[in-house]
Amino acid sequence: MPQISHRGLEMPSSPIRKLVPYAREAKSHGVKVYHLNIGQPDLPTPQKGLDALKNIDRKTLEYSPSEGYASLREKLVGYYAKFGINDISAENIIITSGGSEAILFAFMACMNPGDEMIMVEPGYANYISFAVTAGIKVVTVTSNIEDGFALPPMEAFEEAITPHTKALLLCNPTNPTGYVYSAEELQRIKEIVQKYDLYLIADEVYREFVYNGEPFVSAMTLGLPQNVILVDSVSKRYSECGIRIGMLVTKNRMVYDTVMKYCQARLSPPLLGQIVADASIEGTEEYAKECFEEYKKRRDFFIKGLNSIPGVFSPTPNGAFYTVVSLPVADAEDFCRWCLTDFRLDGETIMMAPAAGFYRNPDLGRNQVRMAYVLKKEDLQRSLMLLRAALKAYNHRTTF
Amino acid sequence: MPQISHRGLEMPSSPIRKLVPYAREAKSHGVKVYHLNIGQPDLPTPQKGLDALKNIDRKTLEYSPSEGYASLREKLVGYYAKFGINDISAENIIITSGGSEAILFAFMACMNPGDEMIMVEPGYANYISFAVTAGIKVVTVTSNIEDGFALPPMEAFEEAITPHTKALLLCNPTNPTGYVYSAEELQRIKEIVQKYDLYLIADEVYREFVYNGEPFVSAMTLGLPQNVILVDSVSKRYSECGIRIGMLVTKNRMVYDTVMKYCQARLSPPLLGQIVADASIEGTEEYAKECFEEYKKRRDFFIKGLNSIPGVFSPTPNGAFYTVVSLPVADAEDFCRWCLTDFRLDGETIMMAPAAGFYRNPDLGRNQVRMAYVLKKEDLQRSLMLLRAALKAYNHRTTF
Repeated sequence: MPQISHRGLEMPSSPIRKLVPYAREAKSHGVKVYHLNIGQPDLPTPQKGLDALKNIDRKTLEYSPSEGYASLREKLVGYYAKFGINDISAENIIITSGGSEAILFAFMACMNPGDEMIMVEPGYANYISFAVTAGIKVVTVTSNIEDGFALPPMEAFEEAITPHTKALLLCNPTNPTGYVYSAEELQRIKEIVQKYDLYLIADEVYREFVYNGEPFVSAMTLGLPQNVILVDSVSKRYSECGIRIGMLVTKNRMVYDTVMKYCQARLSPPLLGQIVADASIEGTEEYAKECFEEYKKRRDFFIKGLNSIPGVFSPTPNGAFYTVVSLPVADAEDFCRWCLTDFRLDGETIMMAPAAGFYRNPDLGRNQVRMAYVLKKEDLQRSLMLLRAALKAYNHRTTF
Repeated sequence: MPQISHRGLEMPSSPIRKLVPYAREAKSHGVKVYHLNIGQPDLPTPQKGLDALKNIDRKTLEYSPSEGYASLREKLVGYYAKFGINDISAENIIITSGGSEAILFAFMACMNPGDEMIMVEPGYANYISFAVTAGIKVVTVTSNIEDGFALPPMEAFEEAITPHTKALLLCNPTNPTGYVYSAEELQRIKEIVQKYDLYLIADEVYREFVYNGEPFVSAMTLGLPQNVILVDSVSKRYSECGIRIGMLVTKNRMVYDTVMKYCQARLSPPLLGQIVADASIEGTEEYAKECFEEYKKRRDFFIKGLNSIPGVFSPTPNGAFYTVVSLPVADAEDFCRWCLTDFRLDGETIMMAPAAGFYRNPDLGRNQVRMAYVLKKEDLQRSLMLLRAALKAYNHRTTF
């Protein structure tokens, strides 16, 4: 039997999805599982997006252009302008199969195998999967739950730099912590990017969800046109994760042209998703406002509830819809699995993502989980109750 | 300015799409372009697939499972059985974002950077792009237009084998030549796969289009369960290239589990495409038969027409809907470009894919093009007329 590749073996299992088989097993026995593990919002997709599907009058669902339809890219120019991202045109935008593909193509185009990329940990776990796919070494600088996962000091970045450092990856607002970088922190990022002439790969898919009243500062506005590659997605802001429509935006023509070669190889991004996304962008300001208010309310409710459980601590995230929470357990992954396999309260349980998978350093985050507050308030309330009971039962069991 | 990666520079431009900017320029001046360059069928998508979109009653277009919906995978089990592929279950099937993603994930899971993969040339150009993406060395054995691109002799495969050879990639029916491997040829492939314990990555997306009356022999029926990875797609058989739904099928559990890690990293395949594909599989036998008859008719008409043009030669392909054609020109890429930039007949021209991009050896295929006979008969007729006139004008011009 031929062997699996080393990189295939090295690929981490998704901490967000690795416990899925246990959840499936529980569900097959009639257990209701509250999904705090995944950023799958329960809010509806904009009606305009859904209507666009019903109104399709095509006879053939044909390939779209490799860079995506011009109409969608042109509407995005107007969308970005609302966030202060001016000075770009449709020719700077490439439509991808989800933000995921934009990340992979950016890695492939910018870095060689063995090159190093710096990112803050805890960070979105799939960045590491895409880095393994691309043969890139991820070097992390650590942010801490004690100060709410603020940007680590510049010395930590300086220490992480080597002659192989090629890029800095910044997720803002941050998945998994919900931290939003301030204008001042972004200036520090700009300094280090300029000093070492790095690519700055900026994942800003949660830009609509910033709750502290400060205007969101995009990496595209830092005055680094040759360095910045923006990764974006409509998944979260229009609650249409399933359509797999993301974007890569850059003013760097060489990067654009190189990414386009990867795009041509995979032929085209999803046609139907583009139709939905195109219809979702315009005339949905009211929808966006409602989603924002709803998530803000959920955040306030959920974070307060978490911190009222003995031994549980969550900082107050200012953005996105995640939080990294420390629990009074030694091994949060074991606890998460146990919740799915053993714990039941009135036939219900919760699913969380163990946070260790969001750290590169295996010693960190062992007692932390990532939770997404994307469920409606009653479900969050019930989840909090389940968490409180589960922790009690779990710790009672292990100290027996 | 930071540098582009070596692999990014090494990525070939798609021979199918690289001339697109010239076509776009021509169209912007009102020129009608007949697209023989790309396998984008003009046949309609099954009505059941289109209706499924109109009948979507979801409120949220959410993530689907990373491996794709069980319903679609279960229907595929029944579909494959019709082609003699038995002994598989839904747990052997992974839904991917087009066949393209299945190819990339198979490469990533099975081979390390520097490993070698053997394929027949001319071969589907994007295989090489995905190999560059994965850092794999492609070693080609050459098939020839003179014998209709039959399987090269076993000696050629034996010569190509090195200690680094890890896989053999076989496209059957073949893109770009339309050649269909016989049962006897597949036995020879089996022998070499067994002898060197290779992965056999079998791309069979054109299995519905075999015109010689012989039953199609799938690599899945060769009795190599641990070696074979089947790549599939609904794009061509239901004329729904834009929905980006492909499949990876394997009985090798390690390969399956490894590919699943790549799938989890990119979260999920397109939701809407799965809904269309699911509705397209069953109850569309009549549709499939009509498509088959139509392509067969087009093939007969088009190949005869090509061979009636002075200096043009096309073998008769027994499958798919492509043919590789030799033209009476020294540099077919220059000719293809010239057709788009300079040649007009009553405001019309043709677009073809230069075949050199389908060969690894830069000396081969220089006077060949790939053409897809996916247009309706009147358009094919007009294309033949344009080709005849263009060749005359081009050769007149260059011999001046």
